[in-house]
Amino acid sequence: MTLLPLGDYLEALRHTTPLIHCITNYVAMNSTANLLLATGASPAMLHAQEEVAEFTALSSGLSVNIGTVSAPWAEAMLTATATANQHAIPWVLDPVAVGATTYRQQLCGQLLAMSPTVIRGNPSEILALNGLKSQGRGVDSTSTTEQAAEAAIALAKQQGCIVAMTGERDWVTDGRQHYQIEGGHPLMPRVTTLGCALSALVAGFVAANRDHPLAATTAALACFAVAGEQAGSVAQGPGSFQVALLDALYQLTADDLSANARVVAIDAI
Amino acid sequence: MTLLPLGDYLEALRHTTPLIHCITNYVAMNSTANLLLATGASPAMLHAQEEVAEFTALSSGLSVNIGTVSAPWAEAMLTATATANQHAIPWVLDPVAVGATTYRQQLCGQLLAMSPTVIRGNPSEILALNGLKSQGRGVDSTSTTEQAAEAAIALAKQQGCIVAMTGERDWVTDGRQHYQIEGGHPLMPRVTTLGCALSALVAGFVAANRDHPLAATTAALACFAVAGEQAGSVAQGPGSFQVALLDALYQLTADDLSANARVVAIDAI
Amino acid sequence: MTLLPLGDYLEALRHTTPLIHCITNYVAMNSTANLLLATGASPAMLHAQEEVAEFTALSSGLSVNIGTVSAPWAEAMLTATATANQHAIPWVLDPVAVGATTYRQQLCGQLLAMSPTVIRGNPSEILALNGLKSQGRGVDSTSTTEQAAEAAIALAKQQGCIVAMTGERDWVTDGRQHYQIEGGHPLMPRVTTLGCALSALVAGFVAANRDHPLAATTAALACFAVAGEQAGSVAQGPGSFQVALLDALYQLTADDLSANARVVAIDAI
Repeated sequence: MTLLPLGDYLEALRHTTPLIHCITNYVAMNSTANLLLATGASPAMLHAQEEVAEFTALSSGLSVNIGTVSAPWAEAMLTATATANQHAIPWVLDPVAVGATTYRQQLCGQLLAMSPTVIRGNPSEILALNGLKSQGRGVDSTSTTEQAAEAAIALAKQQGCIVAMTGERDWVTDGRQHYQIEGGHPLMPRVTTLGCALSALVAGFVAANRDHPLAATTAALACFAVAGEQAGSVAQGPGSFQVALLDALYQLTADDLSANARVVAIDAI
Repeated sequence: MTLLPLGDYLEALRHTTPLIHCITNYVAMNSTANLLLATGASPAMLHAQEEVAEFTALSSGLSVNIGTVSAPWAEAMLTATATANQHAIPWVLDPVAVGATTYRQQLCGQLLAMSPTVIRGNPSEILALNGLKSQGRGVDSTSTTEQAAEAAIALAKQQGCIVAMTGERDWVTDGRQHYQIEGGHPLMPRVTTLGCALSALVAGFVAANRDHPLAATTAALACFAVAGEQAGSVAQGPGSFQVALLDALYQLTADDLSANARVVAIDAI
Repeated sequence: MTLLPLGDYLEALRHTTPLIHCITNYVAMNSTANLLLATGASPAMLHAQEEVAEFTALSSGLSVNIGTVSAPWAEAMLTATATANQHAIPWVLDPVAVGATTYRQQLCGQLLAMSPTVIRGNPSEILALNGLKSQGRGVDSTSTTEQAAEAAIALAKQQGCIVAMTGERDWVTDGRQHYQIEGGHPLMPRVTTLGCALSALVAGFVAANRDHPLAATTAALACFAVAGEQAGSVAQGPGSFQVALLDALYQLTADDLSANARVVAIDAI
């Protein structure tokens, strides 16, 4: 898959600073904006029905996250994704806690019908999206990426999209090619909304590398894995980890990413 | 009251990682989630009428904070608290700035009728809830906990609940037994939404220690007092204080808490 | 203009700790509250139509930011600004991304009709507000303050208000007197919502220095410029910059501000 060294996809992000329209949850808004700015993308958050289509059309990528969704936000998500599709703008779905309630399942059904370019979730969310019985009780995952790998591949095939599943090890698949990414740090699940922010960063990478969405998604996850490792090596706890992660994403060079990313192709599962 | 050393209640929180449903204000969402994760609970924020009851029923505890409330959120609060009561799930009320407007007073009247397990507020809020003339002009308190102690006890008796009142010294009372907690740091009021996050942490402690809500509430406040002292000893200002507080809550052991908490029983006021 | 040393305006802020009612965007709420608390003002966020007028009337200043506006929030903004005008409470308009959509332009037209005391924006926003063709594609500015200086002065004259335009160099003008403020750090645009928080801080300074709004606005911007320089000198990236900025604003003395602010009067442009 990797047509270019992974660092080249980061280089493209920084060169183009893609405008990423984020319709995300209240918890994640600030951290998402800061993670995008630190890495090199340009975030914008807005959702009013009066303007959402107009703004999506100006954007290079769209990230939709259902964390704290309510009816007006769901409507904005459907309008924005329709606009993204009309203008061939890549968009990422983050199906937060989709297994937890009927409302989330129904909304995700509507959003899947809008053909996301990438789905980014944890193993419980991917299992739930694929119609399997989810063990997730909320925003946390109780399954591993290995346990959900088959579901991820099946979902990617069925949707014709990329699935990025994050956990102790990350998986990326388009249904045909599968990659595993190692790295990160045990403190990452102790900081809220890192996964939500990563979904928006995936939108940034895919927007900046339109011809290579699978490699771009992998590069976004590898950024987090490498920067997360670096942040973990200096952090005393989740407070200093957050600070160090933003600094590490900002300081991460394309060469660092190419040299330190641990990505392996998975032939059979 | 303290049937067990205070650290045991923290141990129980970490052992069970209770899922805490937070219906809180926009300012506090991210900091609340991070403080719960750092300490050892599992936060979830959602409020849509379509799913709120379904989700509260899955939770171990509920925290309701009226900071940036509007009509749809007030409706979610009433649905969630009714669900909590149906399922015997403990819930905490944080009556932010209740003295400031008629709308807040009316909403708090409705929420008090839903029988919170614990009320966590500052002295001005406790005075206002108890029907006394409040001096508070907003989210800050202009009264001390000592000045509001009688109101806290009266409110606890009248409601049959626990009142946790935080200030330079904290008070916890169930109307019969009263405890004072010392610690913390003068920088704490210079960081926004620490009180809001503490309310959610109280929900976590009470959820993890169902048989001992008074001791669990005291332990939650003692965690903040001890970790706040530690954070204050290394902070240069409110920015580094926030970071150090998250790290300190993460690093705090049950033994640290038992050894360093300064809790005294108050016999008469 | 500067009737007093700039530090005196900071001293007045800290002496009076003005209550600043912030109707701002979801991304900026937490950072705005923390920046106000660190510097010495008292923030409060609420927006429900049921209480917004009652609360604005209690406040010393109001800050209105359209970042994530939707219909109920726009209504709250119009009610709050009307109340501010009835009670002669100063208010600040932050026209986030006004050039991006028709909805924002129409809302800003309504808000300009409510006579803001100060408008704080980036050059693209000031150009858009002044009816010129904006180059801005979102929340970022693609014009410099120098390119937009004429528009800022024209807008100030037409509105009879102060315009504070921030960028690599900041400009403050009331249409007759113009000041340029140097300082800050290249990391500032890599941290989200610093401009939004600055708008609220301007409301704080103007509220605490009612007779000198032009000097107070200049002092608020100078605080950010001086503290930003200090934070930049110790930061490793945008994560540590945020932390250091809050600490620097907290530690900044009136004497520091007077001594280190680099403000020059601009005679002709």
